[in-house]
Amino acid sequence: MSMNKNAPIAIFDSGVGGLSVFKEIEKLMPNENLIYFGDTARVPYGTRSAETIRRFVKSDLDFLFRFAPKLIVVACGTASCVGAPVLEEECEHFTSVISPSAIAAAKTTKSGRIGVISTAATLKSGAFENKIKELLPAAEVYTKAAQMFVNVVENGWIEEDNEIANAVAKEYLKDLKKQHVDTLILGCTHFPLLSKVIQKQMGEDVTLISSGYETALAAKMDLEALGLRSDSTVAGTKKFFVSDDLESFCQLGAVFLGHAIDRDEAELVEVG
Amino acid sequence: MSMNKNAPIAIFDSGVGGLSVFKEIEKLMPNENLIYFGDTARVPYGTRSAETIRRFVKSDLDFLFRFAPKLIVVACGTASCVGAPVLEEECEHFTSVISPSAIAAAKTTKSGRIGVISTAATLKSGAFENKIKELLPAAEVYTKAAQMFVNVVENGWIEEDNEIANAVAKEYLKDLKKQHVDTLILGCTHFPLLSKVIQKQMGEDVTLISSGYETALAAKMDLEALGLRSDSTVAGTKKFFVSDDLESFCQLGAVFLGHAIDRDEAELVEVG
Repeated sequence: MSMNKNAPIAIFDSGVGGLSVFKEIEKLMPNENLIYFGDTARVPYGTRSAETIRRFVKSDLDFLFRFAPKLIVVACGTASCVGAPVLEEECEHFTSVISPSAIAAAKTTKSGRIGVISTAATLKSGAFENKIKELLPAAEVYTKAAQMFVNVVENGWIEEDNEIANAVAKEYLKDLKKQHVDTLILGCTHFPLLSKVIQKQMGEDVTLISSGYETALAAKMDLEALGLRSDSTVAGTKKFFVSDDLESFCQLGAVFLGHAIDRDEAELVEVG
Repeated sequence: MSMNKNAPIAIFDSGVGGLSVFKEIEKLMPNENLIYFGDTARVPYGTRSAETIRRFVKSDLDFLFRFAPKLIVVACGTASCVGAPVLEEECEHFTSVISPSAIAAAKTTKSGRIGVISTAATLKSGAFENKIKELLPAAEVYTKAAQMFVNVVENGWIEEDNEIANAVAKEYLKDLKKQHVDTLILGCTHFPLLSKVIQKQMGEDVTLISSGYETALAAKMDLEALGLRSDSTVAGTKKFFVSDDLESFCQLGAVFLGHAIDRDEAELVEVG
């Protein structure tokens, strides 16, 4: 890990979902140099076993360490929760989606009834639930694995009236609605891309916690605490790496980021 | 490749879908020894690039060759179509899903209007379309990538009235319905598991071609032509290998096979 202020921030995810974090980091810290890695050859992570996910995370980190980043941002709920032992072992500094989202939910809830949607692997790890209970012992936490949302997002079916997105949301959210949660953590970085669909199904009274924004804010605070914010006054460089299908990533990624990904900024790599 | 009559038949797929072929092989040739490999650590294949799919197929074959099989059955539409160059290079004998399904469709159609649903990678390869046109040059072939069906099946959402399965089917099949095809190839071995949902959406007048049954029949004929049918008079052994999450595979696999998978018959392996 680099202690150089102008070293890059390295952000990674299983696929395109982590761009929801990248986008917020770009907005909050425009002068930082950013590296993104999407493991599109092995997406999705959330349906796989803990052993396999940890093996994937280890190889993702090995790749990112080549760039001597000053901070690793784990822009993937599954990698954050299930990969925690590997992250703690391998990284000097990292920001993951768990604490920022749990803190935001604990601050937001009035009824203490908090919902978490995540991948199956994240749910099994209990990471969000444990963190919320640590902050708010009286909280009642209701969890639901919603892994098909990852596939819906990876297909780009994110419009508010998309029939498949809505059918999947209806199925996944019916139990959480019955539990009358007032706050819902989108515990996978793919999910904020479906926030309109999810909000519609849950109703306007439920506050959605987007792991994207909360994680980006936490990364900024972590860098400030470490004295490692860039002192550059010009826009930072961006570089995107994917392990498969660069074309699709650039197309879909542009939709998620709200701006084109320059092909000079994007590269196909073999990882793992 | 073994020329021993009692060597096993090795069947492989990206995940559980190929069990639709395994099941039919088991029924048609109960005395054969069968090996199944489901690459559940890297499923799905159909959304990945041709280079990545071929790399996966190469490592799948390397694993299966350890068992000195007399025949490789490629129980995966994507591996059959996109992996064809690797299969031809590496295998002395193999049966894939392309020809059997194309032949069945060409025999079945009356109007010459044939639909093919497959993964995106299979569609891009043009393999089914080329084979059908070779057999029936006047055929009009309408294709649709329906990769989300793979995720629906891997989630076990295969009941006729499942809301998500039906929403996905409606979306994917609407254009093929407009084209008034009279025959529809289920060009991915996951799809036969959704045949009731697909039949309902297409209407009763459309004949579905199940790659599972046709491929099993072709494997039997291939073995007969080679003089390699087993002369055993007792039930063959079965062995299942997966690259991730043995538990889920056994649970879901039992649903697809219609009988339990004995845990002694199933093993987790690292491939690739």
